[in-house]
Amino acid sequence: MLLLLKASVSEVAASDVAARLRMLGLAVHRTDHLGRIRLAAVGDGVPVDWDQVRRWAEVDSVDTIAVPFKLVSRAFHPQDTVITVGRCAVGSTQLALMAGPCSIEGEEQAFTIAAAVARAGATVMRGGAYKPRSSPYSFQGLGEEGLKLLRRAADAHGLAVVSEVMDSQQVPLVARYADILQVGARNMQNYSLLREVGHADKPVLLKRGMASTIEEWLLGAEHIVSQGNRQVILCERGIRTFETYTRNTLDLNAIPVVKELSHLPVIVDPSHGTGIRDKVAPMARAAIAAGADGLLIEVHHDPDHALSDGPQSLYPVQYAELVDQIRTIAQVIGRRV
Amino acid sequence: MLLLLKASVSEVAASDVAARLRMLGLAVHRTDHLGRIRLAAVGDGVPVDWDQVRRWAEVDSVDTIAVPFKLVSRAFHPQDTVITVGRCAVGSTQLALMAGPCSIEGEEQAFTIAAAVARAGATVMRGGAYKPRSSPYSFQGLGEEGLKLLRRAADAHGLAVVSEVMDSQQVPLVARYADILQVGARNMQNYSLLREVGHADKPVLLKRGMASTIEEWLLGAEHIVSQGNRQVILCERGIRTFETYTRNTLDLNAIPVVKELSHLPVIVDPSHGTGIRDKVAPMARAAIAAGADGLLIEVHHDPDHALSDGPQSLYPVQYAELVDQIRTIAQVIGRRV
Amino acid sequence: MLLLLKASVSEVAASDVAARLRMLGLAVHRTDHLGRIRLAAVGDGVPVDWDQVRRWAEVDSVDTIAVPFKLVSRAFHPQDTVITVGRCAVGSTQLALMAGPCSIEGEEQAFTIAAAVARAGATVMRGGAYKPRSSPYSFQGLGEEGLKLLRRAADAHGLAVVSEVMDSQQVPLVARYADILQVGARNMQNYSLLREVGHADKPVLLKRGMASTIEEWLLGAEHIVSQGNRQVILCERGIRTFETYTRNTLDLNAIPVVKELSHLPVIVDPSHGTGIRDKVAPMARAAIAAGADGLLIEVHHDPDHALSDGPQSLYPVQYAELVDQIRTIAQVIGRRV
Amino acid sequence: MLLLLKASVSEVAASDVAARLRMLGLAVHRTDHLGRIRLAAVGDGVPVDWDQVRRWAEVDSVDTIAVPFKLVSRAFHPQDTVITVGRCAVGSTQLALMAGPCSIEGEEQAFTIAAAVARAGATVMRGGAYKPRSSPYSFQGLGEEGLKLLRRAADAHGLAVVSEVMDSQQVPLVARYADILQVGARNMQNYSLLREVGHADKPVLLKRGMASTIEEWLLGAEHIVSQGNRQVILCERGIRTFETYTRNTLDLNAIPVVKELSHLPVIVDPSHGTGIRDKVAPMARAAIAAGADGLLIEVHHDPDHALSDGPQSLYPVQYAELVDQIRTIAQVIGRRV
Repeated sequence: MLLLLKASVSEVAASDVAARLRMLGLAVHRTDHLGRIRLAAVGDGVPVDWDQVRRWAEVDSVDTIAVPFKLVSRAFHPQDTVITVGRCAVGSTQLALMAGPCSIEGEEQAFTIAAAVARAGATVMRGGAYKPRSSPYSFQGLGEEGLKLLRRAADAHGLAVVSEVMDSQQVPLVARYADILQVGARNMQNYSLLREVGHADKPVLLKRGMASTIEEWLLGAEHIVSQGNRQVILCERGIRTFETYTRNTLDLNAIPVVKELSHLPVIVDPSHGTGIRDKVAPMARAAIAAGADGLLIEVHHDPDHALSDGPQSLYPVQYAELVDQIRTIAQVIGRRV
Repeated sequence: MLLLLKASVSEVAASDVAARLRMLGLAVHRTDHLGRIRLAAVGDGVPVDWDQVRRWAEVDSVDTIAVPFKLVSRAFHPQDTVITVGRCAVGSTQLALMAGPCSIEGEEQAFTIAAAVARAGATVMRGGAYKPRSSPYSFQGLGEEGLKLLRRAADAHGLAVVSEVMDSQQVPLVARYADILQVGARNMQNYSLLREVGHADKPVLLKRGMASTIEEWLLGAEHIVSQGNRQVILCERGIRTFETYTRNTLDLNAIPVVKELSHLPVIVDPSHGTGIRDKVAPMARAAIAAGADGLLIEVHHDPDHALSDGPQSLYPVQYAELVDQIRTIAQVIGRRV
Repeated sequence: MLLLLKASVSEVAASDVAARLRMLGLAVHRTDHLGRIRLAAVGDGVPVDWDQVRRWAEVDSVDTIAVPFKLVSRAFHPQDTVITVGRCAVGSTQLALMAGPCSIEGEEQAFTIAAAVARAGATVMRGGAYKPRSSPYSFQGLGEEGLKLLRRAADAHGLAVVSEVMDSQQVPLVARYADILQVGARNMQNYSLLREVGHADKPVLLKRGMASTIEEWLLGAEHIVSQGNRQVILCERGIRTFETYTRNTLDLNAIPVVKELSHLPVIVDPSHGTGIRDKVAPMARAAIAAGADGLLIEVHHDPDHALSDGPQSLYPVQYAELVDQIRTIAQVIGRRV
Repeated sequence: MLLLLKASVSEVAASDVAARLRMLGLAVHRTDHLGRIRLAAVGDGVPVDWDQVRRWAEVDSVDTIAVPFKLVSRAFHPQDTVITVGRCAVGSTQLALMAGPCSIEGEEQAFTIAAAVARAGATVMRGGAYKPRSSPYSFQGLGEEGLKLLRRAADAHGLAVVSEVMDSQQVPLVARYADILQVGARNMQNYSLLREVGHADKPVLLKRGMASTIEEWLLGAEHIVSQGNRQVILCERGIRTFETYTRNTLDLNAIPVVKELSHLPVIVDPSHGTGIRDKVAPMARAAIAAGADGLLIEVHHDPDHALSDGPQSLYPVQYAELVDQIRTIAQVIGRRV
């Protein structure tokens, strides 16, 4: 339920309302709207006499949030959420450009690519140190060593860092090095992990699961936000369909849909969304034209020898050209690089 | 097989080569490449001694077309096919803007919408007279009366006409009024219909089937082209996936993929691809940014009272704004409205 | 709407009620229920004052059919529909065993297979004379010659005949030779064809479209029944999913679902549903265990040289073993071979 | 690679071969075949001179395992794996009947249901104590308290216990109470969890992910087995498709496919596979007819008041009837209850 308090209600009185709701067994989250205090009170199956609550002196109105995701819905928080990471404000008019290799493979690789993507205009460097791989016999990432390299390479070029965390136990370790904690598509419904990053004080990038509906994706975000961490960036990376020519089917419809349903920023990963190098740039342009808040793109200076995802990685020069194209398209819809 | 004839081979000698191939039981199609004559000889399972053909005096080289679709593949015809319809050259640098109501409902409706889309910049008017409807109890279209109204409304505003043909027997009738024969998604594998429009002398707009892979879609086009009609425009309109928030999942990945595999033009229908009015413009912009050759969009001046597809039809003013946005995006990739 | 007439209403009076409903613009279909006359009056968007109809002297009650498919719903016709073809009563306690080659290829092939499947217990012979093929260069069937061979082979062994019709124009020709007109998966939404077989006086076997929901499938059947032909046999043959190991994903869930929603018989085609010979028998057994009314199975005595679908065709001996297994499973659920 | 040692090779010599392979950087797993020692040596990208290994004195032959899953493939281990849990031998001719409530809700519920399913013939009791729920506001399970109740209720009726583990940290706790550790569909690619249960000394029930191909599912099992735990039971529970009438599409094709590709037992969960009570029995029968090694079924004595999955839970009497039907079907394929 969404409680709008009266304009005259003081901070102290609002806290008291929240406390009373919590005593009824509800979780209470606060957001402000047009200068007034708003409280969301959530708790499935908790029996509450809402007619009585409506008559409380401090309460102006009580409304249902008609969607299963509450705190991440526009109904709860009408304004766009903006998440600041380094020089980047994800969800603002400025597009968030995140780029880098699939996996961190070594010092030279990390620094070479960091330099290239920074020069092209990226503000966040991606790079995997813990890799979820279908086969137990594939390269599993450099682990903490990879995180250290990624951090140093990013720092050297003024970039923030996003890297994947695969397990609830790994959260403190990854949070030590990364500015954004990435939850991968395969873990979008790993609720233990979602709860743990929900307690972290770092923004979370939540990829859409391969077979997740938009509603389930937003419920995944709700798992995080309900733990207290409101800094969630959604990332569309393609869904699984019958089409086999491309690795996944990039669902750009999801961009305007998420923008309507939620206040959270949403970016697009056209590298996994297509799986084919020369399809990445067209789909990156399309994502921005559809209203995405940014891009997460795999870039590698020597993709033929990459330890993972080489065939879908852009060369640095391709990435730079793409950023130039994005710059013009962004203007059409009131955004900028 | 693809036979490149020697540079010196005359038209008469080339005809003779073609005749000899036909006597072997093959279908022969001609295309020219860089001033030289090229012949495609197709026939599954026809036993031919290609080593001997390779030694014919007129023949320079014999190559396999490694894909199941032959005549629509880039291997057969490396240059983009351009199809001229009225003031529109589909597949050229100029984008093909097709718009109009889902169904033709009456004279006033047809003329009002024709005026609006022409003013906004469209060059082709869409409008259904024969409607494939899931339920036998839904409005099935005005039939020939609808085609007459569509033709008159389009003529009054200098527009060409595209309209759907649902059955092989209907082809002559629809071809009398329309400039482009549309084959709908549900009929993409109605091979009797494909064969019949393959004999027509009008361009064909072939929508992708709801569950068709890109390869099956191109094979559908091959059914048409193999009958002699090379003027096929492909149209992506969304595929069926598990996601239910949108009517279909618009597969924009298909745009750069088709552009690589085939020489045929490919346009996008974001109206069916999303099913939701305020998602049409973002996805139309995305389609152009991804490299589509044009757009097929449903526009209605009074969508609340439309007899079909009202919820996904743009108001004329929205369509005009969209065309303005498209104009700028088109420049980024060397196209124009 | 479903009108139950009073017990005392005569045939003449019932005809008069039907005539009055037709004058209101409705289509009227009659079914009887527990000795009383029931009329279904359908017509989307036709404005009718149902409160007034409810007060007609002959009318006992007026109820809504809450599903989009009306005449094929259990609400309209609670008892199972049984369709008699030759020695087979499809939809009765006796299972309908239909078997034969994918395509009719010649006299010896047709007679050899007819003998084998008849000996094993089949009562209907399948065989394609007109083949919908993805590629225009694949074998397209023997046409009328194939139908003649199929008819003669089936007659020689006391079998009825089912064969595919691909186009509305072909209906009279195929109906001359076949006892059951098959509409293939690719044509499940070819409404011109559905209308035409709806006027035929032969039962129709309607395969589920590759990407069709159960509701759309039943609406396809409704297109046929609404034209007057109530003899429709549904056939589940696998849907398209992301899984690629099997040709299709056989959706046996659909069997109990269709049985609940509709009175029409439903059979299963495990040959197309799996695409792999040694997976056909397990899935055929599963189909019967799930409650299917019969099986449509591809059998070929020399599948390595079959012109189509060899890899999924059973050898005659395998088919005979399968029928034996089916016999026992059938008893568990009160059916018999 | 699969090394078959010579018949004369002693245990000591075989250990020496294994040690040499490990020194090359390979993981080595042993299985015996027809009285001879076989070793699987796996390690993606490890450079090994196999021609030289082939010449080792102890080695008879060296063969490639042509599938990406190695240790779980039939190539590695041709005989069926049988996993003994309590009175049940999963993968033997005896079917494994696992049943119980979705969630453990309290003492009376647990004991009532345990008694009912034991009486009907089940040998393993299911029951969730940690529940993965799409919404953070839904009932999340009783935790350790639930595990204790489940254990006591099962013990009281001679049943073994299967319960879900949601996170790598939870493994020791759940293993204290359960005989089989269940990894849910949402966690099928949670590789940290797979690794952890791979170190446990309890059998693992691995559900197929909602959008996982059969190959990915077997690779998930490979993650577990490669850690040393060979006791993996696969469980098909429905995949996500476009069909919305049922909760999931139960993919019974997967049963004969898995049986061909792998030596691991595979059971079916028709409760989640359909999501509808009266569709569970038909699909359970179908699963056994298709060759499944057992069933995992939700049973609740008061499903209208169940805290989760009530609508898909069987009443105890329905479950007992189903087991009777299964008994007869099992005989057809040489199995027994």
